[in-house]
Amino acid sequence: MLSPGATIGVLGAGQLARMLALAAARLGFKTHVFAPSADEPAFDVCAARTIAAYDDPDALDAFARAVDVVTYEFENVPAATAEFLDARRPVRPNPRALALTQDRLVEKEFVQGLGVETAPFADVPDAGALARAVAKLGRPSILKTRRLGYDGKGQVAIRGGGDLGALFRALGGAPCILEGFIDFVKEVSVVAARGVDGEFHAYDISENQHENHILAETRAPAAILPETAVRAKEIARRIAEAEDYVGVLAVELFLVKSGRSERLIVNEIAPRVHNSGHWTLDGALTSQFEQHVRAIAGWPLGSTARLGRVTMRNLIGDDAERWPEIAAEDGACLHLYGKREIRAGRKMGHVTRIELE
Amino acid sequence: MLSPGATIGVLGAGQLARMLALAAARLGFKTHVFAPSADEPAFDVCAARTIAAYDDPDALDAFARAVDVVTYEFENVPAATAEFLDARRPVRPNPRALALTQDRLVEKEFVQGLGVETAPFADVPDAGALARAVAKLGRPSILKTRRLGYDGKGQVAIRGGGDLGALFRALGGAPCILEGFIDFVKEVSVVAARGVDGEFHAYDISENQHENHILAETRAPAAILPETAVRAKEIARRIAEAEDYVGVLAVELFLVKSGRSERLIVNEIAPRVHNSGHWTLDGALTSQFEQHVRAIAGWPLGSTARLGRVTMRNLIGDDAERWPEIAAEDGACLHLYGKREIRAGRKMGHVTRIELE
Repeated sequence: MLSPGATIGVLGAGQLARMLALAAARLGFKTHVFAPSADEPAFDVCAARTIAAYDDPDALDAFARAVDVVTYEFENVPAATAEFLDARRPVRPNPRALALTQDRLVEKEFVQGLGVETAPFADVPDAGALARAVAKLGRPSILKTRRLGYDGKGQVAIRGGGDLGALFRALGGAPCILEGFIDFVKEVSVVAARGVDGEFHAYDISENQHENHILAETRAPAAILPETAVRAKEIARRIAEAEDYVGVLAVELFLVKSGRSERLIVNEIAPRVHNSGHWTLDGALTSQFEQHVRAIAGWPLGSTARLGRVTMRNLIGDDAERWPEIAAEDGACLHLYGKREIRAGRKMGHVTRIELE
Repeated sequence: MLSPGATIGVLGAGQLARMLALAAARLGFKTHVFAPSADEPAFDVCAARTIAAYDDPDALDAFARAVDVVTYEFENVPAATAEFLDARRPVRPNPRALALTQDRLVEKEFVQGLGVETAPFADVPDAGALARAVAKLGRPSILKTRRLGYDGKGQVAIRGGGDLGALFRALGGAPCILEGFIDFVKEVSVVAARGVDGEFHAYDISENQHENHILAETRAPAAILPETAVRAKEIARRIAEAEDYVGVLAVELFLVKSGRSERLIVNEIAPRVHNSGHWTLDGALTSQFEQHVRAIAGWPLGSTARLGRVTMRNLIGDDAERWPEIAAEDGACLHLYGKREIRAGRKMGHVTRIELE
């Protein structure tokens, strides 16, 4: 167990790193943030900072010497960076968990290997393979780059007609995966944590609503059958155990209904704190950020007890200009990430509303 | 109203400044901390820092230029410092409110001038005056320095016998005040905030238990009559209005019972966030720290709704070594202040326990 006063190293300096640093401070830890550019949200709240490229070995080495454990706020940390650091300090979640989620094909094969359902998929290494994949999975389907996609970036829908070669080239000619269409009623997510000793705690399942491919709103608890909630937590636990995972992870799931029964299909795994868990900052006894810090520090996990019915709404782009109105709203918990420039699609903050039960 | 991205200047870098900085960050503000020594809790979580003496005009001037509003975490900020800064940037709470609480004699006269009861008191400018004061107020009574006392420091009990001259000299020969004995059943406190526009919100009254003259435990709500709670809030409001106060203040009150009726006597005013309000971090929708930031930024105040029955326990000195046990306690919310060295009587952190209602 790391003692209070120890230093948590964080790769990435966006809002997730910022909220991790704030949570780490509550527990008496210092945070050292490492990121390539200076003007980032987390740099305002950390004890130490390194501004350097993720492939700068000298900077990484000095960073490793200055911290007691390394974590990250985003899954696209280069594998070489994670391995370099892991040879010097514990990297949590471990580099293997990171690698598994960096490639959609590898991730889906991993999940299916656990006996857990994913969307049907096919490997699309080149334009030729796309025609065969579409023939197999039908239309509509979604072509996604295997790597580096987020918030709807790096993907394109395959509907009737269209030049498949052109669609493939539109994604830069990178290796892709084709995913079959899922007729889901909603997306839910499990945010859970696993400790160094294998202790596992999941928050209540939340349901997510997207707008323009970006998470817009999360509500907890999700309106799902009790057995579906149990099953969702079990899926997260199975994934975490198979990866020997340490820290918070999020699993996004599609909920498919046939009659009154509900089925869960894994959409994506995020090896980190997740936007759909922001509601825990105000709506649970332990926030996902503190939970992550506890886990990677080797501490016991905190209580995931929920304080009421919670709705978290993202403030995206111009939404952030509504801060005076939200600040004046009775009971609204406002969070702003300290980003200087408002840009379309940029997550600027969020607001949580709690209905005490 | 300060916009998110603005910089809050804080004088003092202890745990209160640290928790203010964490709250400011939630709302998208930056914090610039000013204090004389480097190894302090707030320096780990702020965007900018100045390490300089409180009477260094160049450092103060540069600090004022770098911030949008100035606040402080302790009431012993030199008056000259507050005035120097107030000529350059808004200082909130204002220097007059600060001055009023820096001198126990001035504070008591101010409170009585509002028609609010204090302990009986007498001015003790010198050893000779002490004998007359004791003759007037009787024994037991308490001799306190007019300035710079906290946590039981700068005070001595006058009981039967004893050499009054020696007792006076034991407090360094500084101007003192003698306070008559109050046979109170408990100490309660009001933590409240007043906004720039005069908006006033008080949290539920809490009750405090001291050990060795240091706050040990706070429970909210206090077990007092509903009309006593109303009266306590009214006292805080009257004080805040008379001072044209902006920010969070705490008023410590003695509760005296005669039969079933309850009477409140003002013990002390703290022109700042207060240890007896720490329960609001986990136990209220808006913490006292966010409330203070909202007030000094000219924002509307947040909801003071309480989430349950709350107990806050300070971790003083060696108590901090119990962190592994508290970290493992289900539902306990642990806060550690990042102080490197454990010292007897030093506030190292606190733990909050909530019983959801």
